[in-house]
Amino acid sequence: MKFYDWQLAPNPKRLRMFLVEKGITLPTEQVGGDGVKLRPEFIQKYPQATVPMLELDDGTCIGEAMAICRYLEELHPEPRLLGQDAKERAIVEMWERRAYDEGMVAAAEVFRNTHPAFVDRGVPGAAVAIPQIPALVERGRIRLDLFFDKFDRQLADNRFLAGPRFSVADITAWCSIDLAGFSSIGIPDRCKNLKRWQAEVAARPSAKA
Amino acid sequence: MKFYDWQLAPNPKRLRMFLVEKGITLPTEQVGGDGVKLRPEFIQKYPQATVPMLELDDGTCIGEAMAICRYLEELHPEPRLLGQDAKERAIVEMWERRAYDEGMVAAAEVFRNTHPAFVDRGVPGAAVAIPQIPALVERGRIRLDLFFDKFDRQLADNRFLAGPRFSVADITAWCSIDLAGFSSIGIPDRCKNLKRWQAEVAARPSAKA
Repeated sequence: MKFYDWQLAPNPKRLRMFLVEKGITLPTEQVGGDGVKLRPEFIQKYPQATVPMLELDDGTCIGEAMAICRYLEELHPEPRLLGQDAKERAIVEMWERRAYDEGMVAAAEVFRNTHPAFVDRGVPGAAVAIPQIPALVERGRIRLDLFFDKFDRQLADNRFLAGPRFSVADITAWCSIDLAGFSSIGIPDRCKNLKRWQAEVAARPSAKA
Repeated sequence: MKFYDWQLAPNPKRLRMFLVEKGITLPTEQVGGDGVKLRPEFIQKYPQATVPMLELDDGTCIGEAMAICRYLEELHPEPRLLGQDAKERAIVEMWERRAYDEGMVAAAEVFRNTHPAFVDRGVPGAAVAIPQIPALVERGRIRLDLFFDKFDRQLADNRFLAGPRFSVADITAWCSIDLAGFSSIGIPDRCKNLKRWQAEVAARPSAKA
């Protein structure tokens, strides 16, 4: 197996954190190139043109961070980061999807529609030019505000997002907040539970992955 | 268990198709109300304010279509709609996530940013007014075009999206194309493989769920 990574991008960080939490080491290749773009050789190998990607020994290319994490969870079950039983797995997936749809996507709306390196690259992996949309920056900020409040409420009664155990939902939420930070947006002071969670996750070795 | 459904919405249809494919019947409540909105009683019970939602007998509310499908797959494993082994499950999840991110989200960008019922409701489930963004309609159309071509290529060598077996990836792609149809966007004639797949899925009883 080989992990195609890009140190700068938010989604490979989800996988890097997962690997550290699991104690898994994989042969890794950095595929970022000039101009904040993926290297042409990587895009030729993998036209989906997104990271992370896991290449299996039979040549199969698995993309999408959570598909890779789920595959690795089956090969290395402990510690379980996708839930211990059917109900917990449902709760983990629910919060992971919300973290992605409401956190990561909102943070990406702000970042990709403002940053000069992403002019005409409004959507990751798209094979044609997609202009930035200034109105999405404002929408992304509103959505991030809603995301912070919703996740703060969930953490009022839960140590981690899906309950007492750290999971991929926490990883995706962490990486979303990390990406928001690239646009100088941080957790608002009113979100005390989320701040408490942030300090706890920051102390894990995986946070620096 | 109880399934909270809304006949008009695209995401509950993913679960309805899944249930028909599985041969599972659940007590179901329709929660659509006046003005193309969810009923206030439902939002009070479930502030996430999206459908589908599955309420377990202990009162736990599971949201997000794929979290619900995965939970039900564990309770009723056959026929397997999320893959037969670790590798197939990774491929199914990869294509399901792409169908959602590149198909469903693009179709929703077009629909929610044009339809008069969604003025100030640009994002599902948001607790505040989020204005429509006209530029997103054009971006959504471009993204749907890319989605059609990418999925057409995948179906050149595969009967279904994740290989020889029907899966949740096909369900999400089908429901995305269904939603695009609400904006009078259909599969382009050039996408022969996708058209062949469409005819095959249309013949399944679940397509009418």
